[in-house]
Amino acid sequence: MQLVEVKKKNFSDYLQFIDTETMDELAFLVQKLKNKKIAMISATAYGGGVAEKMHSLVPLMQDLGLQVDWWVILGHDEFYGVTKTFHNRMQGQEGKLTPEQKEIYRRYNQTNAAHMQGWPYDIFVIHDPQPAALIAYREKREHENWLWRCHIDTSTANKDCWDFLYQYTKLYNAVIFTMKDYILGDYFEKADIITPSIDPLSLKNIALDKEKAEAIISRFGIDPLRPLICQVSRFDPWKDPLGVIDVYKIVKKEFPSVQLALVGSMATDDPEGWDYLYNTLRRAGEDYDIKVITNFNGISDLEVNAFQTVSDIILQKSLREGFGLTVAEGLWKGTPVIGGNVGGIKLQIEDGVTGYLVETVEECAEKTLTLLRNPLLAAEMKDAGREKVKKEFLVTGNILHYLRLFRRLVQPAF
Amino acid sequence: MQLVEVKKKNFSDYLQFIDTETMDELAFLVQKLKNKKIAMISATAYGGGVAEKMHSLVPLMQDLGLQVDWWVILGHDEFYGVTKTFHNRMQGQEGKLTPEQKEIYRRYNQTNAAHMQGWPYDIFVIHDPQPAALIAYREKREHENWLWRCHIDTSTANKDCWDFLYQYTKLYNAVIFTMKDYILGDYFEKADIITPSIDPLSLKNIALDKEKAEAIISRFGIDPLRPLICQVSRFDPWKDPLGVIDVYKIVKKEFPSVQLALVGSMATDDPEGWDYLYNTLRRAGEDYDIKVITNFNGISDLEVNAFQTVSDIILQKSLREGFGLTVAEGLWKGTPVIGGNVGGIKLQIEDGVTGYLVETVEECAEKTLTLLRNPLLAAEMKDAGREKVKKEFLVTGNILHYLRLFRRLVQPAF
Repeated sequence: MQLVEVKKKNFSDYLQFIDTETMDELAFLVQKLKNKKIAMISATAYGGGVAEKMHSLVPLMQDLGLQVDWWVILGHDEFYGVTKTFHNRMQGQEGKLTPEQKEIYRRYNQTNAAHMQGWPYDIFVIHDPQPAALIAYREKREHENWLWRCHIDTSTANKDCWDFLYQYTKLYNAVIFTMKDYILGDYFEKADIITPSIDPLSLKNIALDKEKAEAIISRFGIDPLRPLICQVSRFDPWKDPLGVIDVYKIVKKEFPSVQLALVGSMATDDPEGWDYLYNTLRRAGEDYDIKVITNFNGISDLEVNAFQTVSDIILQKSLREGFGLTVAEGLWKGTPVIGGNVGGIKLQIEDGVTGYLVETVEECAEKTLTLLRNPLLAAEMKDAGREKVKKEFLVTGNILHYLRLFRRLVQPAF
Repeated sequence: MQLVEVKKKNFSDYLQFIDTETMDELAFLVQKLKNKKIAMISATAYGGGVAEKMHSLVPLMQDLGLQVDWWVILGHDEFYGVTKTFHNRMQGQEGKLTPEQKEIYRRYNQTNAAHMQGWPYDIFVIHDPQPAALIAYREKREHENWLWRCHIDTSTANKDCWDFLYQYTKLYNAVIFTMKDYILGDYFEKADIITPSIDPLSLKNIALDKEKAEAIISRFGIDPLRPLICQVSRFDPWKDPLGVIDVYKIVKKEFPSVQLALVGSMATDDPEGWDYLYNTLRRAGEDYDIKVITNFNGISDLEVNAFQTVSDIILQKSLREGFGLTVAEGLWKGTPVIGGNVGGIKLQIEDGVTGYLVETVEECAEKTLTLLRNPLLAAEMKDAGREKVKKEFLVTGNILHYLRLFRRLVQPAF
C-alpha cells in the first residue's frame, strides 16, 4: 500500500459552479462527517480515468475539511496482467478465469491487506476490481463501512468473472455503479448510482481563450477560419471513426471548406487499436482536410481542450458507449454535440436542445449540415449544453453524491 | 560503468560461412592477441543497431579465445538527451551545441571514467560519440591503445558538433568508420573502414523453413501463393515509402495479384516518424493488398526474417542511405533486391547481378516487372546475392577486420 500525494486544490475556486443550496448541503454534510476518517483505495496513482478523477476528488474533499487519504495497492506485472483480464471480462470478453489467475489475484490482495493493520478509517471506498478482495483479508471492525465503487461498463459482464468477484463484493455495505444499466440485477438488489463527472478547472476543461485555442489547433494544420468537425475518441469499431469520415464526405459536398479532426490516444500494448487507426487513415486517404491526430503527434489534455473549444460541432458517433465523457467535455465548452443514440450518450445529449442523437451516417450528416447552415441554432445550444453539464456532470456534484452516501452509511437512522 | 553479460555463442557454428584461409588467419591473430585484454565500451546494452551487433561480436570473440569485456556507460535522461542531439547533428541536423549540453556531456564522461581506475585493458574500443570523451579523463598508460569506432552516417556531419567532438577523438590511436564517404577529411588523414555486418545465425537472418516463413507472413494477411514485394525500413522521407507504393501501383496493372508489404519499426518518441507512417497509409488508401506493418502490430526479428525469405523481390528504394543493412539481409535470404542508387546500397547491390540499382519510381517499377516476368532470372540472382554477402557482410568478416586492426595497434612493427 502506498499513500498518494495529491496537489492541493481550493474548493472556493469551484463555488462559481454551484448554487448556494448545494453549498449549504455540502457544508452540512462535511460538518456531520468531519470526525470520520475516509480511505480511498485504487490500483494506480497515474494513468487511466479512475486516477484522473481521484486527483480532483481527493484534494477537493480534503479542502472541504474531510479527512480523506488515497492509497494505491502494490503489485507486480503478474497481478496487473490478471486484473487487466478481469477488466476485459467485466466489459464482456469471453473466457473463464484460471485457478492460477484467481490465486494471483487473492495473493496480492492478501499481501496488501496485511499493510492495513491498525488502520483507523471509518469509511473505505474501494475502486474497481483490483483491490476488491482486500475486504476478505481484514477483520472488519464495528465502525467500519466498506463501499465498492465500480467504474467499469458492466452491462455485458462475463458471468464467470462476476461469479468470482461477487464473493468479495457481496461483503460490502454498499456498491456504486456509474449507470443504472450497469447494475448486475442478479447480484445486487440495490446499488447507488454516481455518474462520471468532469473537473471544470482541469487542463482538459478549463476555459481557454479563443485565440490561444486557435493557435494550438493551428499547430496541427487546422485552419481556424474554416468550419471544423471533431471527434475525440479511441480508434475502435464502437467509436465508428470510419462512419465519421463518411459523414464528413457527405458534408464536404455542401461545405467544401469543412475540416475534420479525429483526435484519439493510443496505447502501445493494443495491436487492435493500431490496426483500426490504420484503417481510419486509409479511409481518409490523401484528403488532408481530414486530420488524424494521436498522443504520438503531441496531443494531450490541453490540446484536446483546444479542439473541443474551437470546433463548430463535436461528433461522438459511437455504436456502443459506456458513458462517453467526451460528450460532457464538448458540451461544457459550449459546442453542440451530435452523438450516437446509445448508452450514456443518451443521458447527456437532449435531442434538439444541446445537440442531436443519431442512428446512421446519413442522419448524422444531415444534423451536421443543419447546424452548419444555422449558426444561430448552434449558438442557442451552447448555453443549454453548459447548463446541462453544470447541473449533472461536474465534479462538485460528484462530491455531493459521495458525501450523501457516506452520511447515510455512518448514520443509518438519518 | 556496467559490465554486460552476453549469451554464449559458439564460433564453430560459423565455420560453415568462412573458408579455411580465413580460419587460419583468425587462428593466427587470436594467438597473437590472446594475452591482450580488450574492453568494448558503448552507450546501451539493448536497443539500437550497435547493441545488436555487440551481442554477436563480443561472445564470438570470447569463444575464439580472446579476453573481451563489454561495458556500457551509465547516465541519466539529461545525458541521453544531449547525446541524442549529438547523434542527430552528426547526421547533419543544423544547430549549435550549448555550453550546458557540453557540460553535461563532459560531466557524465568524467563520472564514468572515474570507474575505470586500475582497469587492466590493453585495447579500448569506444563506440560512437556517447563515451568518446572517456579518454580525456583517464591518465593513459603506455600499453593502452584506444580506438574510436563511429557507426553513424557522418557524410553530412554538422561542423559545430564535430569541432567539439574532435578534441576527444583526436586523442585516439585509431578511428574506424563504416564507409569511406563518412571519414571526415578535414579531421583525420587516415581512418580504418569496417563495413557493417549481419549475423547469419541471429533470429533475423537464420535460415527459415519456407513453410514456416509462409505461415508467419500469413498471420499478417499475406497470401503466400501470390507475388509479394516488400520493403523493410523506417517510415521517413529518405526511405521513400510513398514512392514504393507508386511502384506497386504501376506493377499492379500488369500483375493484378501482386501484394506489397511495408514493414518497419516505430519509436514512440519520434513524432515525424508517425506523421510519415500516417502519410504512407493515406497513400495506400483502402487497397488492402498493401500491408503496412510495424512493431506495434507484432513485428520483430523473426517476422522480418520471414518477410525477407518469402518475398519475390525486396525493395530498398532509398533516396539517401547510410549503409542500408536491410539490403544485405535481403540478399542473404536469396531474394533479389532493387535499391536506390545511393550510399551504402551501391556497395551491396551489383547492378543486374544481385538485383538492380534504380533512380526513379518508373525505373524501379520496370525492374520489378522484369524480375516478376522472369522467375529464372530471379533464381540466378539468388546465389550471387548470398555469395556477395558471405564474402563481404557477415559478422565473421567483421571480426577478422577488428583483429587485424588490434594486431597492428599492439604490434606496430608488424
